Amino acid sequence: MPRPSRWDDVVSAAARVFSEKGFGGASLEDVANEVGMLKGSLYNYIKSKEDLLFAIVRPNAEELLDRTRKLKEADLPASEKLRQIAEIHFEIIDRQLPYVTVYVQEIAGKGLSPEWTAMDREYLTLVADVIAEGIEEGDFAESTDARMSARALIGALNWATRWYQPGGPAQARAVAGQLAGIFLGGLLARRRG
Amino acid sequence: MPRPSRWDDVVSAAARVFSEKGFGGASLEDVANEVGMLKGSLYNYIKSKEDLLFAIVRPNAEELLDRTRKLKEADLPASEKLRQIAEIHFEIIDRQLPYVTVYVQEIAGKGLSPEWTAMDREYLTLVADVIAEGIEEGDFAESTDARMSARALIGALNWATRWYQPGGPAQARAVAGQLAGIFLGGLLARRRG
Repeated sequence: MPRPSRWDDVVSAAARVFSEKGFGGASLEDVANEVGMLKGSLYNYIKSKEDLLFAIVRPNAEELLDRTRKLKEADLPASEKLRQIAEIHFEIIDRQLPYVTVYVQEIAGKGLSPEWTAMDREYLTLVADVIAEGIEEGDFAESTDARMSARALIGALNWATRWYQPGGPAQARAVAGQLAGIFLGGLLARRRG
Repeated sequence: MPRPSRWDDVVSAAARVFSEKGFGGASLEDVANEVGMLKGSLYNYIKSKEDLLFAIVRPNAEELLDRTRKLKEADLPASEKLRQIAEIHFEIIDRQLPYVTVYVQEIAGKGLSPEWTAMDREYLTLVADVIAEGIEEGDFAESTDARMSARALIGALNWATRWYQPGGPAQARAVAGQLAGIFLGGLLARRRG
């Protein structure tokens, strides 16, 4: 469908409405009011509320996936890749909190459509593969469960949408570094040998 | 309000409906249909959809808080307390997945009401206090940020509602142990000194 000129306004209005009212609680009428157009005019842009949900979330989800794919191929130790995974995640949360909130709240891990299930699975697999790399290289403990660790890390990162207050790129990087540090180093003190 | 005889049916029907449709997308009519009564009769049990949400979630939230409070006072090393925090969390998820899903999806960290904000904050503080104890006792690394680590752990545990498939107490304990192990030991291999 061609996108008439107020497409960007429609998407950002929908993100605000969905993140305030929840996807289920928000109506297309709410979105139309927020953007200041008649509900009927919205149908020039989208066919359903789901279309709007996916339009909101897709650019950020694609950015996250794309950067993580490239990072996986980079010539860096797994621990550095993991740190950068956290950085990318927080950078996007910092920049696009309402959109990421809608994604985490409404889509992630919910198997809504084959397309989104595939994207969720690819992201989980990329993170788990980086962790498996670290195990192979001997940097990560042999006993590590790569998939479980990836789920734990992704969960902790997604959960940040419930507590993180955006404060710019430097703050996002600092928080990502602390979070990655917890996963890499663990809480237990390293005894001197 | 006195609770007529089908109260338990109403609460469990509402949990199923809310976890399938989302709280925003579900109506009291859906709940009435699920339990097999007229919508008007529901008002003998509750005043609003929010009442039903809180009724669903309260017993599990209170159990979690109560057991964590007792655990914090127990005479155990912080690392063992942390392991048991994960076990309690997974035991409740395993036993009551639809209820915990509704809590995580609709309430946790959202500041919906002073009462729930206080419960969220108490849980975060209990977990952070256990981690701070471990730092003081020298078991956890001095550089640990207790509050950030607590948020990461709680996030990873709550996120399990999106991927964990209930399989009984033994499986729940095993998964909790793996997850706690990641937070305690970290991914990095411990070099022999």
